[in-house]
Amino acid sequence: MKRALDGYLRNAIPLYQAMGASVVTAGDDEVVIAASLAPNTNHQGTAFGGSIASLATLACWGWLWTVLQPRHAGAALVVARAEIDYLEPVTGDFIARCVAPPADAVEELLARLVRKGRARIELAATVEDGAGAVCARFAGRFAATAPR
Amino acid sequence: MKRALDGYLRNAIPLYQAMGASVVTAGDDEVVIAASLAPNTNHQGTAFGGSIASLATLACWGWLWTVLQPRHAGAALVVARAEIDYLEPVTGDFIARCVAPPADAVEELLARLVRKGRARIELAATVEDGAGAVCARFAGRFAATAPR
Repeated sequence: MKRALDGYLRNAIPLYQAMGASVVTAGDDEVVIAASLAPNTNHQGTAFGGSIASLATLACWGWLWTVLQPRHAGAALVVARAEIDYLEPVTGDFIARCVAPPADAVEELLARLVRKGRARIELAATVEDGAGAVCARFAGRFAATAPR
Repeated sequence: MKRALDGYLRNAIPLYQAMGASVVTAGDDEVVIAASLAPNTNHQGTAFGGSIASLATLACWGWLWTVLQPRHAGAALVVARAEIDYLEPVTGDFIARCVAPPADAVEELLARLVRKGRARIELAATVEDGAGAVCARFAGRFAATAPR
């Protein structure tokens, strides 16, 4: 699934390539996407806030894509709302990690998608530096619409 | 100020160039930054949420930079927190517009920066399509630290 997600993002989202991003892990339990610092720097030589938010958005989006592939491939997935706290400057290459939400939320998502053709889910991601320190916390609401 | 801000962003933030962004207006009353759709598309051919959030972040950051240039050039400006509501898909080239907050908030920022050497301010931006329709609303907390 890691290669499938990476190929999909590389093909569909030019900014993914511009950010030097790549999928590290893609599974039902978590999705991790890495980015190089160099294409994402700001005026201070640390990572630009927009890049950090983008990578976190991609990790959550990628988790949803990964989970829906087996049963709802082709579902339209969008981010509806997001918030992010920037805790520490990112001074090197970094990752965004989306860990699966509680199982009942995932079951509700899948059931609702079958029943209504649309569903929403709240997802969270951390952005971490090379030493595993959490530099930003992201939370977003994502919507899935089943293909017609 | 428009050319100064555009040159600064172009030089300091590689993602600004990757997004095909450019400053449209830069003044104390508002900062507007435009981006082309093509380098910012997602899997659905509309603008990627991360690009939308990035452009809004840049508009607010750019407003703060513009306002502080005359008196606090060299101040370190960072985004500390942000939230964004995605209202409508962005289907073409788009802009982010940061309108100056109320005058008393700006005065407080400037006074605090002189007094304490650090200050925070809440800024908002809208992301609009070519017809002026608001497609996303962004709010962020930005921090400025005076140069030593």
